[in-house]
Amino acid sequence: MAEPVDQACPINPVVDLVFSRWTTPILWVLEHHGRLRFNELQRLVPSITPKVLTQRVRQLERDGMIVRTYHAEIPPRVEYEISDLGRTLVPVFDTLVGWSEAHLPQVAAARRAYDAAREEEEAWAKG
Amino acid sequence: MAEPVDQACPINPVVDLVFSRWTTPILWVLEHHGRLRFNELQRLVPSITPKVLTQRVRQLERDGMIVRTYHAEIPPRVEYEISDLGRTLVPVFDTLVGWSEAHLPQVAAARRAYDAAREEEEAWAKG
Repeated sequence: MAEPVDQACPINPVVDLVFSRWTTPILWVLEHHGRLRFNELQRLVPSITPKVLTQRVRQLERDGMIVRTYHAEIPPRVEYEISDLGRTLVPVFDTLVGWSEAHLPQVAAARRAYDAAREEEEAWAKG
Repeated sequence: MAEPVDQACPINPVVDLVFSRWTTPILWVLEHHGRLRFNELQRLVPSITPKVLTQRVRQLERDGMIVRTYHAEIPPRVEYEISDLGRTLVPVFDTLVGWSEAHLPQVAAARRAYDAAREEEEAWAKG
């Protein structure tokens, strides 16, 4: 048999990078709304906490996916926008959305069939 | 300004489905190695625990991504293989791997630049 592919699996790095929880909605919002301040971003991704949003935005800035601009005004103003590198993910997201539109109904049907089969087994086991 | 897209973000469902931790390596292994028994799958994804592998395999079966075949022998034999629905993800994975090959070096460069800038700031702050 072949060698373990666990470490070599070429999907892992991109999954860890792109699909950390919350990174996709943040990039999605920035792609569709342009440059935003932190509070605007927060309003557009409301179920994320400010603490986690701060962490994720910093991570995405470090990864080169978003650009943070600091305006030395009073009070200071900070804005975020998607970078050219971040924008290269847009076709990847489109591929995912396309898959989703084509196949999520099949997933829902598979779940219903699985759950129904389990219920039937349980009913049978109870006599 | 536009409405919050949090719930509507069309990437979320596919991310939750496909990129739950560990689902990609399991599908990847099954796509490349065909039908496997649990222990073989475990050997090919060695850093996953048997407990988590059991959970993920069940989830993928329920989602219709893999097919479980039970052979009523003594001892019983159970095998897993990727389904036709699961196989529709292969081009999606290829897109991700393609993006990764093209852009991960830029991500690594962005991280080095970010870390270097932070070190410089800290050194400056210390005088």
